[in-house]
Amino acid sequence: MKLTKKADYALRAVYHIAQLPEGKLASIGQIAQAQGAPREFLAKILKQLTRVKILRSFQGIHGGYQLAREANKISFLDVVEGVEGPISLNQCCRENLGCCDMYQDCKMRHFWKRQQDSYTSSLANETMDLYVNAETVAKAAV
Amino acid sequence: MKLTKKADYALRAVYHIAQLPEGKLASIGQIAQAQGAPREFLAKILKQLTRVKILRSFQGIHGGYQLAREANKISFLDVVEGVEGPISLNQCCRENLGCCDMYQDCKMRHFWKRQQDSYTSSLANETMDLYVNAETVAKAAV
Repeated sequence: MKLTKKADYALRAVYHIAQLPEGKLASIGQIAQAQGAPREFLAKILKQLTRVKILRSFQGIHGGYQLAREANKISFLDVVEGVEGPISLNQCCRENLGCCDMYQDCKMRHFWKRQQDSYTSSLANETMDLYVNAETVAKAAV
Repeated sequence: MKLTKKADYALRAVYHIAQLPEGKLASIGQIAQAQGAPREFLAKILKQLTRVKILRSFQGIHGGYQLAREANKISFLDVVEGVEGPISLNQCCRENLGCCDMYQDCKMRHFWKRQQDSYTSSLANETMDLYVNAETVAKAAV
């Protein structure tokens, strides 16, 4: 059980873009370098994040990526599911009766359902302005 | 992010054995059939669970596996880490400074650390007598 590389890079990319000054775009190369992500893999991830309307892409020599909506409207869940599809910690977590021969009698699935609910709700409650907030708090404390 | 097949089968196998009448052993074939697990893969998992002292194995024609200690002394965490090694939801979750170039400045890792703590503590608090308890409760309610 581990966050996939794909989801990790997707979060890093959106994190990177969320920190840019308003109106500024980030190129694939800039994100790849800043976040230590392989360029080809990152390009596919950025395309997918654009398709699910988390990012907006601009063509041309001064093109690049920016957020498609405000950072506080983009949750970790949006980003992870945007590149991975619906999260399912175990095969039975999305209440699909045909998923497993043991489904009807297995008592373990209630545990997994609770983990699934808790994890997805944590991801849904964390938004990409976390950093803005963290910095505001840090500045206020100085 | 998904429970691995290995950890899933390990939990199912321990679950199966925990439900046996006292003193009874389960063979690889019986567990494989009851839990829908591939026999060869399961054999390796059972060997590993024996090595980490969750199961005890008995050789011979009437041999098989039983729990090495009471079901309420075996947590989901024991079983999952017994076959997977220490859980780490993301590369930074085990506080390894050298794990990632971004470690020092990344604010996302605090989120992953919280998820890691919450998930491992849930796994640690769920023990393999869950089923015994669930059945006792169900019987008491009849």
